[in-house]
Amino acid sequence: MTEVPDLSARLTALEDREAVRELIARYGPLADCGDARALAELWTEDGEYVVTGFATARGHSEIAALIEGPVHRQLMADGCAHILGPAVVTVAGDAATARCHSLVLRHEAGSFVVHRVSANRWTFRRTPQGWRAVRRENALLDGAEAARALLQGV
Amino acid sequence: MTEVPDLSARLTALEDREAVRELIARYGPLADCGDARALAELWTEDGEYVVTGFATARGHSEIAALIEGPVHRQLMADGCAHILGPAVVTVAGDAATARCHSLVLRHEAGSFVVHRVSANRWTFRRTPQGWRAVRRENALLDGAEAARALLQGV
Amino acid sequence: MTEVPDLSARLTALEDREAVRELIARYGPLADCGDARALAELWTEDGEYVVTGFATARGHSEIAALIEGPVHRQLMADGCAHILGPAVVTVAGDAATARCHSLVLRHEAGSFVVHRVSANRWTFRRTPQGWRAVRRENALLDGAEAARALLQGV
Repeated sequence: MTEVPDLSARLTALEDREAVRELIARYGPLADCGDARALAELWTEDGEYVVTGFATARGHSEIAALIEGPVHRQLMADGCAHILGPAVVTVAGDAATARCHSLVLRHEAGSFVVHRVSANRWTFRRTPQGWRAVRRENALLDGAEAARALLQGV
Repeated sequence: MTEVPDLSARLTALEDREAVRELIARYGPLADCGDARALAELWTEDGEYVVTGFATARGHSEIAALIEGPVHRQLMADGCAHILGPAVVTVAGDAATARCHSLVLRHEAGSFVVHRVSANRWTFRRTPQGWRAVRRENALLDGAEAARALLQGV
Repeated sequence: MTEVPDLSARLTALEDREAVRELIARYGPLADCGDARALAELWTEDGEYVVTGFATARGHSEIAALIEGPVHRQLMADGCAHILGPAVVTVAGDAATARCHSLVLRHEAGSFVVHRVSANRWTFRRTPQGWRAVRRENALLDGAEAARALLQGV
């Protein structure tokens, strides 16, 4: 009977990775349909979203404000897709990290252009309500070292 | 011994999500190599593929015809990639839904352009042969409300 | 008690798929931060990376050299993202295959362009150290049959 707890631990490891991946996958659709509240709730109450060179949002209100603000609303009016690429996820107990690319595609004058290409490093915490983001750091892959540094350690 | 069925249910939950994700991931490669029959069989016999503003295909023959038709064959001749982004999947018993972005990239005059950027909502049914799509609805993210609506509820 | 090994086999099937997907997901971040050694170690010692029409690299040193070479270093200096799309994975015992798209996005004169769009077929082997790539074959989706052939059989 020693195998059963082992199976349960292996299952939990897969479930945790799945939950973190799902959380990251939800960001883009929530951003693109403008659901600022549900998007903010991907983070813990004290969560941070650092968009290098643009803004640092702390807590649900500030994160929601990024989605409700004029820059994002104009993007949505033009037509946009926030796509967060396949993530590399590492879980250690009640903490997790993930690294992934993100793209913002934008509809502009009748065609689609690649508006932003970024590197992202996320940290997560297991809470009584499930996994939540503690911090997402995002930097444009425009040749600057800052973005490459976010991808190191995968 | 009550734990064993619980483990089995947890496993089934992961397997179902994996099967749905795999089905979505197969669409792009099948479209890009022109395997119309295998692509159509991602759907149930009565399945629907609604491409907003372009066509609604019902059943295997009509779905296969989209891939065998002149628009898609020209795309393939030019060079194309249909990429269906990380999906948000929800399973409830023998039904499932997923939301994801899709991109069509096209080779044109020696370079690659972003040809289409869409929102997608899928519904699936568990069949004796495994999970199959019942409906895929796709709309261009060109600023129209229809596309944003497909992403709501993640 | 016959169910417990069955559960274990089902878990292993999911774990194998997860490990293969993770390995593919690690390629892009490692390429974009320039970690040539860790990238090469995604392959077995005798692994091959075939970039159709550009180079065939065999073994860790030759694969690492692709990342350390002038073409890739210039890409990194400009700003780049290697994104390997959702993969279709098939595991059979100690061997696995995967098919996926890959994109290279490049920062150029202040904006982002789609630099490469490719089809990929991977084969993997289970080793004492975990899953490793035995071969990755990559071809541009520029209308040539070679790339479409890599996607067949999903």
